[in-house]
Amino acid sequence: MPMEIVILGGTLVTMSCKGIIRDGAVVIEGDSIIDLGRTDEIKRKYPRYEKIDARGKVIMPGLINTHQHMAMSLLRGYADDYPLKEWLERWVWPVERHMSGYDIYIGSLLTAIESIMSGTTTINTMYHYMEDYNEARAISETGLRGVVGHVCFSWRKEHDIKALIELARWHGEADGRIRVSVDPHAPYTVDPEYMKELRILTKELNEKYAGDHGPIMWHTHLAETEDEMQKIRESFNLHVDGGIVEYMDSLGVLGPDVIAAHCVHLTRRDIEILRLKGVKVAHNPVSNLKLASGISPVPDMLREGITVALGTDSPCSNNSADMFEVMKITALLHKGVSRDPTVLPAEIVLRMATVDGARALLWGDQIGTIEIGKKADIIIIDFQRPHLKPLYNETSHLVYAAKASDVETTIINGQIIMENREIRTVNVKWVIEEAEKAREKLLKRAYEMNR
Amino acid sequence: MPMEIVILGGTLVTMSCKGIIRDGAVVIEGDSIIDLGRTDEIKRKYPRYEKIDARGKVIMPGLINTHQHMAMSLLRGYADDYPLKEWLERWVWPVERHMSGYDIYIGSLLTAIESIMSGTTTINTMYHYMEDYNEARAISETGLRGVVGHVCFSWRKEHDIKALIELARWHGEADGRIRVSVDPHAPYTVDPEYMKELRILTKELNEKYAGDHGPIMWHTHLAETEDEMQKIRESFNLHVDGGIVEYMDSLGVLGPDVIAAHCVHLTRRDIEILRLKGVKVAHNPVSNLKLASGISPVPDMLREGITVALGTDSPCSNNSADMFEVMKITALLHKGVSRDPTVLPAEIVLRMATVDGARALLWGDQIGTIEIGKKADIIIIDFQRPHLKPLYNETSHLVYAAKASDVETTIINGQIIMENREIRTVNVKWVIEEAEKAREKLLKRAYEMNR
Repeated sequence: MPMEIVILGGTLVTMSCKGIIRDGAVVIEGDSIIDLGRTDEIKRKYPRYEKIDARGKVIMPGLINTHQHMAMSLLRGYADDYPLKEWLERWVWPVERHMSGYDIYIGSLLTAIESIMSGTTTINTMYHYMEDYNEARAISETGLRGVVGHVCFSWRKEHDIKALIELARWHGEADGRIRVSVDPHAPYTVDPEYMKELRILTKELNEKYAGDHGPIMWHTHLAETEDEMQKIRESFNLHVDGGIVEYMDSLGVLGPDVIAAHCVHLTRRDIEILRLKGVKVAHNPVSNLKLASGISPVPDMLREGITVALGTDSPCSNNSADMFEVMKITALLHKGVSRDPTVLPAEIVLRMATVDGARALLWGDQIGTIEIGKKADIIIIDFQRPHLKPLYNETSHLVYAAKASDVETTIINGQIIMENREIRTVNVKWVIEEAEKAREKLLKRAYEMNR
Repeated sequence: MPMEIVILGGTLVTMSCKGIIRDGAVVIEGDSIIDLGRTDEIKRKYPRYEKIDARGKVIMPGLINTHQHMAMSLLRGYADDYPLKEWLERWVWPVERHMSGYDIYIGSLLTAIESIMSGTTTINTMYHYMEDYNEARAISETGLRGVVGHVCFSWRKEHDIKALIELARWHGEADGRIRVSVDPHAPYTVDPEYMKELRILTKELNEKYAGDHGPIMWHTHLAETEDEMQKIRESFNLHVDGGIVEYMDSLGVLGPDVIAAHCVHLTRRDIEILRLKGVKVAHNPVSNLKLASGISPVPDMLREGITVALGTDSPCSNNSADMFEVMKITALLHKGVSRDPTVLPAEIVLRMATVDGARALLWGDQIGTIEIGKKADIIIIDFQRPHLKPLYNETSHLVYAAKASDVETTIINGQIIMENREIRTVNVKWVIEEAEKAREKLLKRAYEMNR
């Protein structure tokens, strides 16, 4: 029998054209939202459904994290305060080399737990696909929704193609909660020919696997650091000028199914191309600041009508998977940098973390708002906390004052995944123990290698 | 009988030259720390003391918030995303005008609760002093430690002088937990003559009230926005040039007992003067970004050896009283803006929120570290949370990954103020109800006035 749940008495922040419904209610049947409205009406219509009391709480769509590397939680706090190149080459990559499929699975479970506990219901994640244990498995088991990619590099084409074909079998799995993506790492690590080959492969995979499950997308890093064009010229012996988006476009690989993480260093022409090609942007302010990559021209991109969604990036460069924090920092940062306190008001930022996140993942028909017919990805936030008092405006509080830990209940695809901050789908204590074991093992291997 | 407490088995982040003591313990007698060391030794020495089990937890000095306007929590989320001038003149001040002493007391209680729950043990707060109900009373009743000021404006000299003389009686009250300060609002709202008069008054108040209670300091806003020199020229018909700190110095009012909030717009000479005069700086990155005031040159000031501490600013321009958030944003922001990921590493930022906060308030002899002989202002943080796993480095986690809600226990002046997230000193539910009532009343009055 499908779940039949009615959430009653809360302030319903729909993120749809219905706006905010006070003393609102939502009805869930199976994996979907089948009704919503004022509590008194809804209560009468669905008397026998399981009830969740949301009085004094806010009911809203789950947050959508559009750029993650879930497995990297295993390296949280392992190395901070280094430049990107040194951080990757000296610290992260030497340890990552020793990560087994099981490590990736455990790290992903840990990030899944943190994400669910902080109100994220969908994650777009890029990592190395492994056959038995992987990010998709962790998403499937914890009840999350996600787009899982395999990251591609020129130096391992054969391996990548094999991995992508295997990964594609996950597309539409877990009752449609899992989709997959093809993830060229970055313009400077994937040569032009390989980039084009991956585009063709994506088309073939879509023909075979897309069906009713939505498209297999592209997820890539783009314009994260200032030196990407320089690297391209050196690595591929190319004589190219202009911006990095312009270069990517010259390969014919950009389109509305591409989600580009970072987009920090852009020319005017780059922004124009992002708009023309309908490329989606995943903005990761915490990671960009921490690695000193720079500050993305988000207000400019929004002005052009480009879809800009939000991401945490990995728990290794953040060091949290906390989308509430990302919302607040996004709203703050661009005001301070542009010296204009009216840019990125709370309403816009809340849209970036919900509706625009769904749109960026080409999943807007099913998630991102609370609407009849959409999948039931819903979070309930306790607004009776001292730091959320008094209350003038829910939207302001959600962006500027609410904390990840205020999320009380997380529902994904109609299933209650967390209730009263207890995760129902996975043994949290066991995951923590396994994560600590993985840390010890990784440190030991890295140490042995360095001797 | 004085409290006799021993906290055992935790990772002791002393913030003193003793560094981090694993499996560490602290002994509290009365209001002070009387011993510390490794758990096995301490356990043997103090067998009969009340025990707090800190296994799997971090024990550290309470955080010090060096710039607040506690009462303004009543306006949290009331108006966001406006320019500073419009925000103050059109939104904040018209409502503040209707705030009674009782409102100030309730707003301060609310901020005290939020602060204690997020690990802050000392607050430097500036507001309007009222006779019966005020910020000092809220600090006294909740068990917090704080410096309470009365904010002075040229247009109400007589009122201010009277208020300051009354407020001075609080100096050293609540077992020494309360100190007071003289708070000229800003260089452009306090004319040069009044500024000098306040300096003389401060000297007189110190002679009368300082005694063993430490000095009565100065707390002021300085260089928050770019137009302060312009305002001074216009308001006071002065022909002055150079930077705003230079102007203040020309009045002879700067010294090591001045804590200057913001210091965003500084000339080289201004920074030089801050250093020479030993002025302390309260950096408020969240508020500066939200109001688009700009970005303070913190790395430059630190390089000069200036004491830079951290503050949240009011819950109306933040909109939290969360020092963990301020630590993370401080560490991130200056890396991103300077494009140097090595500036403001976690260790430095943690110092800014503890040791340097104490030093900025001239209270470093009693608080800011865990050391024998210091006051027992201690927080215990649960490190067994998924988002703090795995653990490589406590300092990194405290700045980049820990959340306000991870604080489990807050001890101030030897008293357990919060245990397992339950506040012992004040009825939280009652404060929340009163805060909501105050909000309704303020909105009604503002509405009536606008009709």
